[in-house]
Amino acid sequence: MKKHNTVQLSHGGGGVEMNHLIRHLFWERFGNDILNQAEDAATLTLPSPLAMTTDSFTVSPHFFAGGNIGTLAIAGTCNDLAMVAAKPSYLSCSFIIEEGTPVQELEIIVDAMAAELSVCGTQIVCGDTKVVPRGAADKVFINTTGIGQILKTGVSAHRIQAGDVILVSRDIGCHGACILAARESLRLAHPITSDCAVLWPVVESLLEQSIDVHAMRDATRGGLSAVLNEWCQSSGLQLAIQEAQIPVDDAVRGLCELCGFEPYDLANEGTFVIAVPPTQVQHTLDVLHQFNARAAVIGEAVSLSPAKPILHTAWGSRRYLDFPAGELLPRIC
Amino acid sequence: MKKHNTVQLSHGGGGVEMNHLIRHLFWERFGNDILNQAEDAATLTLPSPLAMTTDSFTVSPHFFAGGNIGTLAIAGTCNDLAMVAAKPSYLSCSFIIEEGTPVQELEIIVDAMAAELSVCGTQIVCGDTKVVPRGAADKVFINTTGIGQILKTGVSAHRIQAGDVILVSRDIGCHGACILAARESLRLAHPITSDCAVLWPVVESLLEQSIDVHAMRDATRGGLSAVLNEWCQSSGLQLAIQEAQIPVDDAVRGLCELCGFEPYDLANEGTFVIAVPPTQVQHTLDVLHQFNARAAVIGEAVSLSPAKPILHTAWGSRRYLDFPAGELLPRIC
Repeated sequence: MKKHNTVQLSHGGGGVEMNHLIRHLFWERFGNDILNQAEDAATLTLPSPLAMTTDSFTVSPHFFAGGNIGTLAIAGTCNDLAMVAAKPSYLSCSFIIEEGTPVQELEIIVDAMAAELSVCGTQIVCGDTKVVPRGAADKVFINTTGIGQILKTGVSAHRIQAGDVILVSRDIGCHGACILAARESLRLAHPITSDCAVLWPVVESLLEQSIDVHAMRDATRGGLSAVLNEWCQSSGLQLAIQEAQIPVDDAVRGLCELCGFEPYDLANEGTFVIAVPPTQVQHTLDVLHQFNARAAVIGEAVSLSPAKPILHTAWGSRRYLDFPAGELLPRIC
Repeated sequence: MKKHNTVQLSHGGGGVEMNHLIRHLFWERFGNDILNQAEDAATLTLPSPLAMTTDSFTVSPHFFAGGNIGTLAIAGTCNDLAMVAAKPSYLSCSFIIEEGTPVQELEIIVDAMAAELSVCGTQIVCGDTKVVPRGAADKVFINTTGIGQILKTGVSAHRIQAGDVILVSRDIGCHGACILAARESLRLAHPITSDCAVLWPVVESLLEQSIDVHAMRDATRGGLSAVLNEWCQSSGLQLAIQEAQIPVDDAVRGLCELCGFEPYDLANEGTFVIAVPPTQVQHTLDVLHQFNARAAVIGEAVSLSPAKPILHTAWGSRRYLDFPAGELLPRIC
C-alpha cells in the first residue's frame, strides 16, 4: 500500500487505509493483549467500586514546553481518576484528525502518550479514529476516557471538615503560563515549562502511607481558584488561604503581571490541591516533598460565612478569591 | 447571568459560564444520582467481565432523516457494547463545540440523546465540555465511551465455525444512503431514513431466549463488506453469501446505482450481522423478526480457501466481496 506522509480522508473511511493507519500508528505503540483482540469492545476484569472519567483535548498549540496534546490526553484523564483515589487501569482513546495532518506529528503525539502511560502502568484498551476534511477541525483532537478501581472510598469535597488543612502539591500556574507564552511567542529569560504529568505515583504513595485524605482535586481549567470555590460550595465551609504561602514561580508571576492574569486562575495539568485533617499535615507534606520540593500548606477550612475562599495577605488585608469568569485562555487543554 | 443564544468561548473556560452551561444544557437532560455527584470522576459498581468501547461522532450534516449526531452518539456506543453481549450501563459524554454554535441546536441534540438513552436504560455518568474558536471545529463533535457487564462471554468473530449461518437484522445501507442524499440535497420520491437506533433491546431478547450467538457485529463504517471481511480474517473461514438474500431497500439500491456505490459498503447505525449454529437459525430469525420484518439469512461459513466473503448471484456467478477502500463517505458517523 502507498505510504502517505499526511492523513487522507480515506484513513477514516472504515476500509483498508484506516485498518493500515490503526495498525501502524496506534497498535505498534499502544499494543497489549486486550487492545489486540480487536472486537467492537474490549473485555476487562476490574473490581468495583470503579471510577470513570472523560476528557477531550483541544490544546493549542499542540506542542509546548514540557509536553504535547498526547502527554496531556493521558495525564488529564489519569489524574481525574487519581483524584478519587482510583488507580488508572484502562483508557479508551479516540482521535479526530484533520485531513492533511502530517503523520510524523501524529507519531510524536502517540509516542508521548505511550511514554506517559508507562509511568502509571495504564493500558489503552479500545480506540476510534475519525478523519474530517480540511478546515473542519484544527489538526487533531483527542478524547480519552478512563476507568479504574477506587482504592480508598469517600475521597470527596463533601468530606472536607472545619479544621482540615489545605495543601498544594507544587507551584501553580505553569501549564497556563507556558501555553500563554507559546501563543504570544514570548522569549522569556526563564522559559516556563508545563507541569503536565501523571499524578498517580504521588497519590499511590499517599494511599500506601495510609494518609486519611479527605479530598483531592487537580487544578486544571479555572486553576486553583476554581477548585477552592467548588470545595466551598460542596463543603459549605470557608477556606482561609494565606496568599504568601501559595507557591508561584517568579517567571509565572512575571508573565501574569505582564498579561493581566491571576496565577490562581491559570490551568495546571500536574498539580493538585489536597485536604487532610490537621494531624496528618506533616506526614502529607513529607510524601508530597518526595515528589516536589515546592509542595506547601496554603490554608485551612473554617466554620465561617460566607462559604467562599478568602485570601489573607501578608499585610493583614483580605479579599475573596472569586470563581474565574470570562474567556480566560481558550484551548488550554 | 446573561443568557446567550450561541455558545461563547467563555462557556469552555472552566469558570462561571461553563458551570452554567453544563447545569442547564446537560444536567437538566442527563441528570441522575451518579452524574450529580460532580466529582472529577464518577463512582460506579459493575460486575466483571466488563466491556468498554469508545466512539467520536463527527457526522455531517448534524441533522438527518431519522436522527441527529446525538442519536448517533448514543446508538453507536451502546451498539458496540451490545455486540459483545454487554448491557450498555454507563456512558461518558464529551462535547467539542465551535464558538457560535446555536444553543438551541445543542438542546435538540441533547434531547435526542436523552430519548435514546431511555430506550436501553443507560446513564451518562461523566462528561466534558470544550469550546474551540470559530473555524477550529465544525459546530459540534461528540465522544461517548461506554462500559457494561458482559452477560454472555465469548461472543466473538474468533468463535465462528464452518456451518454457522450468517444473518442480518434488517435491510442494509440506510444510514449511508440517507447521509448521501442529505449532502447531495436530493429530493427522492421515497425518502430514505437512517436506521440509527440502539440494538440492545433485540440483543437482550436473543440472550433471554438463550440463543447460542457465536458472533455479532454492527455494520457501521465500511458496511456489510467490512464486517464480512473482518470475520473471514478472524475465523480463517470463507463466507458464502447469497446476494439475492441480502435485504436492500429499493430507494437505497436506486441511490447506489445513481452515485456509483455498492449498498454493501454503505454504513449502517442500527443494523447488525450475526453468526449462529445451523440448529439455532429459525429461533434467531423469529426473535429478529419481532423487531424488523426484513431480518434475513444471507449465507454461511464454509471451510474453503481463500478466507474471503464470496457473493453468489442468483444466476450462479460468483465474485469476491472486497474490503471497502478509498474515501467512501467521509463524516458518515
